[in-house]
Amino acid sequence: MIYIDKKGKEPLYLQIYRQVRQEILSGVRKEGEILPGSRSLASILQVSRNTVDNAYSQLVAEGYLVPQKGIGYQVVAVPRLMVRQQKESIQRVMKQTKSVKEQKVIYDLTNGSHSNDLFPKILWRKATLECLDRLEYEGKLSTLMDKQGEWYLRSRLLSYLRRIRGIQAQEEQMIITCGLQQSLEIVCKIMYNQDVVVIMEEPGYHKARTVFENNGYQILSVPVDENGIMVSELPAEQGNYLLYSTPSHQFPTGVTMSIARRMKLLSWAKEMGAYILEDDFDSELRYYAKPVPSLQSIDTHNHVIYLGTFSKILSPSIRMGYMILPEILLECYLEQYENYNCMVPLLNQYVVARLLETGDYERQVRRMNHIFRKRLQGFESEFVEMGGKLKITGNGSGQYFLLEFSSEVTQEELIQSALNQGVRVYPTMLFWREKADCPPSTLFLGFSKIKLEDIHDCIQRLKVAWERWLI
Amino acid sequence: MIYIDKKGKEPLYLQIYRQVRQEILSGVRKEGEILPGSRSLASILQVSRNTVDNAYSQLVAEGYLVPQKGIGYQVVAVPRLMVRQQKESIQRVMKQTKSVKEQKVIYDLTNGSHSNDLFPKILWRKATLECLDRLEYEGKLSTLMDKQGEWYLRSRLLSYLRRIRGIQAQEEQMIITCGLQQSLEIVCKIMYNQDVVVIMEEPGYHKARTVFENNGYQILSVPVDENGIMVSELPAEQGNYLLYSTPSHQFPTGVTMSIARRMKLLSWAKEMGAYILEDDFDSELRYYAKPVPSLQSIDTHNHVIYLGTFSKILSPSIRMGYMILPEILLECYLEQYENYNCMVPLLNQYVVARLLETGDYERQVRRMNHIFRKRLQGFESEFVEMGGKLKITGNGSGQYFLLEFSSEVTQEELIQSALNQGVRVYPTMLFWREKADCPPSTLFLGFSKIKLEDIHDCIQRLKVAWERWLI
Repeated sequence: MIYIDKKGKEPLYLQIYRQVRQEILSGVRKEGEILPGSRSLASILQVSRNTVDNAYSQLVAEGYLVPQKGIGYQVVAVPRLMVRQQKESIQRVMKQTKSVKEQKVIYDLTNGSHSNDLFPKILWRKATLECLDRLEYEGKLSTLMDKQGEWYLRSRLLSYLRRIRGIQAQEEQMIITCGLQQSLEIVCKIMYNQDVVVIMEEPGYHKARTVFENNGYQILSVPVDENGIMVSELPAEQGNYLLYSTPSHQFPTGVTMSIARRMKLLSWAKEMGAYILEDDFDSELRYYAKPVPSLQSIDTHNHVIYLGTFSKILSPSIRMGYMILPEILLECYLEQYENYNCMVPLLNQYVVARLLETGDYERQVRRMNHIFRKRLQGFESEFVEMGGKLKITGNGSGQYFLLEFSSEVTQEELIQSALNQGVRVYPTMLFWREKADCPPSTLFLGFSKIKLEDIHDCIQRLKVAWERWLI
Repeated sequence: MIYIDKKGKEPLYLQIYRQVRQEILSGVRKEGEILPGSRSLASILQVSRNTVDNAYSQLVAEGYLVPQKGIGYQVVAVPRLMVRQQKESIQRVMKQTKSVKEQKVIYDLTNGSHSNDLFPKILWRKATLECLDRLEYEGKLSTLMDKQGEWYLRSRLLSYLRRIRGIQAQEEQMIITCGLQQSLEIVCKIMYNQDVVVIMEEPGYHKARTVFENNGYQILSVPVDENGIMVSELPAEQGNYLLYSTPSHQFPTGVTMSIARRMKLLSWAKEMGAYILEDDFDSELRYYAKPVPSLQSIDTHNHVIYLGTFSKILSPSIRMGYMILPEILLECYLEQYENYNCMVPLLNQYVVARLLETGDYERQVRRMNHIFRKRLQGFESEFVEMGGKLKITGNGSGQYFLLEFSSEVTQEELIQSALNQGVRVYPTMLFWREKADCPPSTLFLGFSKIKLEDIHDCIQRLKVAWERWLI
């Protein structure tokens, strides 16, 4: 039985497609069976014939049905064994993703995704057309490329980073990657077999932690205070240490590491012979103050591995980041990655290089700063109106902030009541390795997906949701 | 002193740029020094002023020089420590890449890269424009995406693979990756801590082997005969085995695994509970016979991990491949990769999905088959004329073949004499784990970068180069 929700968000043809597919997979519809014609199904379901045709075409395209001329659509054999084994795990996956989707989310205060209007679509399109021509002219449309990334991109990017972040490095030290996680994968491989202990900020970035864990590294957590990672808590005994840090804008607390703390951290690294992974992921987004110099720029002994991304300024969906290795590690990389291919598409590398070259990238940086400052101010002033039980910390930068409740309430309660009002908010629990240390009533809110004009309505909903914890 | 080679292949401005940069990096040009004006340098070097201006602009863009109005270009401080430490390794890297480039290569018989004309530029451009609009319409221009890859691509691709390769799987089992190496990385991570022995074909694909090695796996080599990997040589004792194979077109021998061997391999896998990585990288390129069914399609017990790529049909520079996991491994993947992001750009996924959807992908498959068949025939007939001392084996498929000399000559001699005639050819040594087992006088030749009209000249050069070993 197919059930149609005409008020649902999902297009009608998709509803039909999904349910017929499920019927076939679950064995309700058997091999060889002829399905009701589109005209008759349309009249049963009270939808247009076109809608049913769309659903059927999709099923034909995916190989579940074959059209039989003059008769209708016939169910194709789906391997039984597969289906039986799969059903459970597919259902599990569906449940995971659905549980949230079923509650209608109007505003998603997620971190990472952007609202559509932030993507520089016209610039991207223009640069793509130019770069296709350029690659054709250079005879490189379809070639294997430099495993470290194109020189064109590395030189444009370094010239920008030298100016903006004081980075001291040559093109030979730079590697273009698919983003932070691939950068970390490479570092993990380079360090392999060296009995390295990874030190992470607590709380810290879970998507970085997962890479170290998956590579089998031992992890040591060190707390963060209002000046950044507490250097006094770092191990004093000799060892092979790799420290992952977010000094410009600590993730998730938003703290900026003070310059004194930076010097202490660097001298600790020098003493230990440790490497510091400086993840400078959103340093370009500062709304009230100038960015602090990068660790890499004040490191005189080559202990810093500098990590960056294009996710915050251009888009998370272009999957591009970069890494600058100190000399000695570069040697290891070249040896160990000799037979590897670069993982970032050539055309995309050219497009980003072109945006850097024309100055469009920097115009986009300014645009993003302008938009995000307004959005952050919007949230801040609305939250202030909600009274003294709420504290917002974000340090005037980036695309997220923390919301701290002084009332007794759990993260789960806050999340669920927000969801009931159509707003999705996130726990800070994820970022704590020791879950017990996580403050019980602090939430993590991203504002990159909420447009300025929607902030008021979004906050009104949260007010209703959290009323009893605000007084 | 700057030296200009007016007959050289490198553009004049690049020659100037490179040498001035080297002078700055090596300390010949000191911080604060004013360089000769473009007019005077142009007259010294006997080039146009425009050429010098181009070189200087590049150096300004990269931060080596700053223009001083009315005076000229001034050298910027380059951190000394860096430079000193770097010089050696940079020179080492440069040497590596230069040693070959310095000999003029007219024809490069490399594997992997394509000649410019093979890239479907117009189709790619059209699909890109369409997909940018589509993503905007869907509100997804700038969002984090499904870590397994977009459903749109997975469904189009599976529908194609079901039809063409008999693949039996659902979208939930598919993962879109940056190509083979990322697919293998994921498999290595899933198998982690399970004391797995990797079995590889000997000779085999070195770019696969390097991933297993970098992940710390023990590797066992099993020889290949004219029917593919020798199942009789596979371990008979129980163990956790992961077997990497290229059954459709063995890399590098070109052998196709017979159907009897396939059945034996599958029953060995069933008995051992082993997993087979079926790398079906170029199965769409068959010039004389129909492709053999994939292992995955005849595997009734979920022992096959199916691996594919878009590098052969579309382009190696788009960095996109895919993997189909059996159920049990899918569970492990979902658990272990919970906090990972997809590494393939969203727009690129849409573009490929669109090409599959419109049928343009299959037209491109036919086009590639047509072009490559002609090229292969061109090489074969020219080599036949070179006499009986040469044997060419490629099995009428793919983009490479082996060339076997019955004369006493080493791979190095053959490579060097070809290079002297402007043709770059490749050793087979790389593909052997036991270098001693590698036939001394066999070469590995790719023909995807050589246009049909160039084959005759290319072979004439090889004739001259190898004359004494042909009689």
